[in-house]
Amino acid sequence: MKLWVCCVLFAFACQSAFADWVRQPFWYDDARRDKVAKGTVWPQPKNIQTTTQSLSLDPDSFSVVTSDDAANSAVCKDVIDPGIERYRGLLFWIPADERVSVSGDSVLDRLRVTISGTCTKYPSLDSDESYTLTVPASGEATLSAQTAWGALRGLETFSQLVYEVDGKHKLNVTTIDDEPRFPHRGVMLDTARHFIAVPYIIQNLDAMAYNKINVFHWHMVDDQSFPFQSTTYPDLSGKGAYTQDNVYSPEDVRSVVEYARMRGIRVIPEFDSPGHMQSWGQGHPDLLTSCSPTSIQQDIYHLGPANVARNSTYDFMQRLFQEIREVFADEYLHLGGDEVHFQCWMSNDEIQQFMQQQGFPNTTEGFAKLEGYYIHRLINILKEFPKRTRGIVWQEIFDNNIISGDFTIDLDTIIHVWQWNNSNFQGIQYWDELPQVTAAGYRAILSSCWYLNFIDYGRDWPKYYECDPHNFTGSPQQKELVIGGEAPLWAEWVDATNVVARLWPRASAVAERLWSPQNLRDATAASPRMEEHRCRMVRRGIRAQPQGPSYCKYEWNRAGEANNIPTASGAQGIMGYVQQLLLLFSCLVLTFGLC
Amino acid sequence: MKLWVCCVLFAFACQSAFADWVRQPFWYDDARRDKVAKGTVWPQPKNIQTTTQSLSLDPDSFSVVTSDDAANSAVCKDVIDPGIERYRGLLFWIPADERVSVSGDSVLDRLRVTISGTCTKYPSLDSDESYTLTVPASGEATLSAQTAWGALRGLETFSQLVYEVDGKHKLNVTTIDDEPRFPHRGVMLDTARHFIAVPYIIQNLDAMAYNKINVFHWHMVDDQSFPFQSTTYPDLSGKGAYTQDNVYSPEDVRSVVEYARMRGIRVIPEFDSPGHMQSWGQGHPDLLTSCSPTSIQQDIYHLGPANVARNSTYDFMQRLFQEIREVFADEYLHLGGDEVHFQCWMSNDEIQQFMQQQGFPNTTEGFAKLEGYYIHRLINILKEFPKRTRGIVWQEIFDNNIISGDFTIDLDTIIHVWQWNNSNFQGIQYWDELPQVTAAGYRAILSSCWYLNFIDYGRDWPKYYECDPHNFTGSPQQKELVIGGEAPLWAEWVDATNVVARLWPRASAVAERLWSPQNLRDATAASPRMEEHRCRMVRRGIRAQPQGPSYCKYEWNRAGEANNIPTASGAQGIMGYVQQLLLLFSCLVLTFGLC
Repeated sequence: MKLWVCCVLFAFACQSAFADWVRQPFWYDDARRDKVAKGTVWPQPKNIQTTTQSLSLDPDSFSVVTSDDAANSAVCKDVIDPGIERYRGLLFWIPADERVSVSGDSVLDRLRVTISGTCTKYPSLDSDESYTLTVPASGEATLSAQTAWGALRGLETFSQLVYEVDGKHKLNVTTIDDEPRFPHRGVMLDTARHFIAVPYIIQNLDAMAYNKINVFHWHMVDDQSFPFQSTTYPDLSGKGAYTQDNVYSPEDVRSVVEYARMRGIRVIPEFDSPGHMQSWGQGHPDLLTSCSPTSIQQDIYHLGPANVARNSTYDFMQRLFQEIREVFADEYLHLGGDEVHFQCWMSNDEIQQFMQQQGFPNTTEGFAKLEGYYIHRLINILKEFPKRTRGIVWQEIFDNNIISGDFTIDLDTIIHVWQWNNSNFQGIQYWDELPQVTAAGYRAILSSCWYLNFIDYGRDWPKYYECDPHNFTGSPQQKELVIGGEAPLWAEWVDATNVVARLWPRASAVAERLWSPQNLRDATAASPRMEEHRCRMVRRGIRAQPQGPSYCKYEWNRAGEANNIPTASGAQGIMGYVQQLLLLFSCLVLTFGLC
Repeated sequence: MKLWVCCVLFAFACQSAFADWVRQPFWYDDARRDKVAKGTVWPQPKNIQTTTQSLSLDPDSFSVVTSDDAANSAVCKDVIDPGIERYRGLLFWIPADERVSVSGDSVLDRLRVTISGTCTKYPSLDSDESYTLTVPASGEATLSAQTAWGALRGLETFSQLVYEVDGKHKLNVTTIDDEPRFPHRGVMLDTARHFIAVPYIIQNLDAMAYNKINVFHWHMVDDQSFPFQSTTYPDLSGKGAYTQDNVYSPEDVRSVVEYARMRGIRVIPEFDSPGHMQSWGQGHPDLLTSCSPTSIQQDIYHLGPANVARNSTYDFMQRLFQEIREVFADEYLHLGGDEVHFQCWMSNDEIQQFMQQQGFPNTTEGFAKLEGYYIHRLINILKEFPKRTRGIVWQEIFDNNIISGDFTIDLDTIIHVWQWNNSNFQGIQYWDELPQVTAAGYRAILSSCWYLNFIDYGRDWPKYYECDPHNFTGSPQQKELVIGGEAPLWAEWVDATNVVARLWPRASAVAERLWSPQNLRDATAASPRMEEHRCRMVRRGIRAQPQGPSYCKYEWNRAGEANNIPTASGAQGIMGYVQQLLLLFSCLVLTFGLC
């Protein structure tokens, strides 16, 4: 009797742990056959030869192994072993009770991973992400890469080759030779207009890995709030965060950086200055310039941009960025530099006096020089850090060079081009800016056409897809200096409620643009792969929004929140699994103990 | 030792069940004080006199009681008792360990609910939703209504008066006299372009209740799919659904209707005909008109609108709508009637022959007559149902009257005005349509300006807020005939991944327009209440998206999905609670059994 009760309870608990996956495709599959391209890869590899000859995978016996001479170093294994484990979880999604035996089929038994180069602990701008992948008609599949990062990209590709037919996991005989077109492929999240809790950042890192995006540009702080908990200056978040719960502790940041590292994703923090610093002033008002009442900003703010006339400002920045450099680990720091309005500086006596000392005229040119002076000095501070550190800056810093004629910013600084010119915003077009930036010898990344916070009715991803960073007039050397781009999601209208669905799969369009060959540019032709990719992300637990009337075989978690999330998807499921395990354990003990 | 292990496991499990609610408001509270109006009501009541005199509530002792002579009938109690229970769960949200004792404060001990009229099992267009609510400086608060539906509205208002100060639940001495401006206040969901699983419909019903919306217009089927599982005609969904998992069983529908009923929400299903029926034709091709190759539609569809020339079509509809009427329970059925293109009918010999028999000319007027004939006959079928049944139709049915000069559609049919005229769509403006509809004596509901599927960058709710259904030239009698409106969310770009965030709080703007007095029209003035309302919805588990840089004291579930959802929010949490209980039970048994 007690055994019976336990079994019922146990079955009941188990039932809730596994969604009802019974789905039978029907007529609309045919009607929309053009919309789904099963087992296709996103972003499209550089070279892919595929066939219609299919092999089956047996989830019970398929293995991913590393060569004896591969993944040889501890540094490689540190990344690739967990990577293989993770992709093992992503390879097989058909519920066990719906799987059909593959006996009698041509079966692929093994994927062998070989890493022939040297691995690094962290990915970097110079990381080699190339790989070759061969799925032969017989024998084992092989994945060869120079680095663990390349091997991760290849594992992602391999996992995307797998598709479902009649209860079987299949993939086709295929040969792939792949590498990214650009080394810097990013998504920017703004955690200052709204705080975005770590689990949502983690979900985005998962999605980024599924799209081979390798930079998470963390626009950490801004006028509205300062969520970064600095150990050096606790008042920054202590007084500048929305609330003391809306903060990222050093442990939070480290967990994000580590989660990203394991996926070959760099985390580049942005601590924007000398503008956009209102929240800094809550705890450290002396950092900012007091605006006189004549300043155009006085009705909004008493304080303006950083007070660049004081040595104490540079000392502060030196100590803060030193801490940031340690916590975030990447060689590059984004220093911001956008949208500094000169009126407040103009209204402040201390700044005026300093400009006279420096010989800067009291004109736009002079203030451009002043901002250049500040950033130049900041970059020099970074240079003296024990760990090599370089800067990325928004395009205004370069534009100030043009205005002031004063190109003192180091050439190894990356210029982030973001402006555009239309009815909403009066800036320079990127195809006019990039020639100037690259002619001056700077490297550039592009964001102008990829502002994903701007939304429109309907299917807008083709617009992002069709924008190309080489769409400007310039020499081959100039084109070479464009090292990639980023899709920014400014967070005025975005928080945890909608951030994932807003980003995906729209950012996927940018991901393919930055990874795949330039001649792949037809969004209509890409649509069936996009449809497959979106459903794949949904199946993997990413809340990617739909792209037109349709359905996925595995829709977003049907029984409410959090049921459908598959095994390898990261942090949000962990407590659920712990509970499941506890429940299983408890019930088993109960069953054998009481009965 | 074993006890120790159990306790750790137990504590660990419990920790995951309760979110970390520690939040300290800080400077931005001041900076954005104008953005949040604590304890304000949305939609704004007709008459509200409030004071700054505050009372505290003691969660442990506060009670909601019904008068001896109130809630007197079983029919009233059926709705109001669970309603009181539900609102008890919504009244107190401060976590127990953060609550501060209210001893010494002026404390409100009790809310007394009185229902003085007659209750009905289901809400209807004629339901009285008025109520008065008094929170006096001393003694008990009173809520008086004519019906259980009015009492539910009053409970919602009472729950919204409560705000949080320093660990206490407070509300101010207030008197409210409230009733809706319009009796028909709806949200339309389209479950044909994308299937929306029941838990997401349930979440929307919760949100509707929080906004005093009383109609869920369920645009159940369309060209793309037929998810309604009919017992009379199983092939409709059997062949017309996306998949056999993307269907609503009769039990699903009944559970939705019951969930809605308990919240005073009518569920009005739409089975659109004679156009938009492609999915019906998958299982029942004879229902539809075969288009000749000369038809403009032939490159897309072989089949066009319903074949209105065959008696079998009417027999089919009679049996199907009879089933629908039973399952959905509301007196009104939405019959559709929009966007019927006449080319296919024009190309079909059987239709042509029928029109000759009927004396309809082979012109636009004739086809308008033909569609009118069909709908007229359908409405007559509904009239003969055992339960009183009336129709709602899209405006084309009325427009056809104008074209054909043939006003045969019953005057108790409601005309649903949806068209507009701008660069995207060439239709008639609602302020030109409503005068004609109401001059002809029909009742009307408005949707033209509330198409929430259309999205724009930024804060668009003021646009919906400022649109008024009485914004047309007409007599007071004509204005009276406008009985409300609906915010439609067509689902081309919406599914479970984004439906809730897309709807809320944008639909809240429509909710206030349809409930509150006409002279309340300043969106800027409404913003602080909107901010409070959005955060209140988030706190209650509704994924309502943000409306500009800000934060809520209780942000969307911080630890990932599904942790933050409070007790009364419906279906999605049930299995979680069962698991928690099992876990608790198992651990306790383990603790006392093993140790």
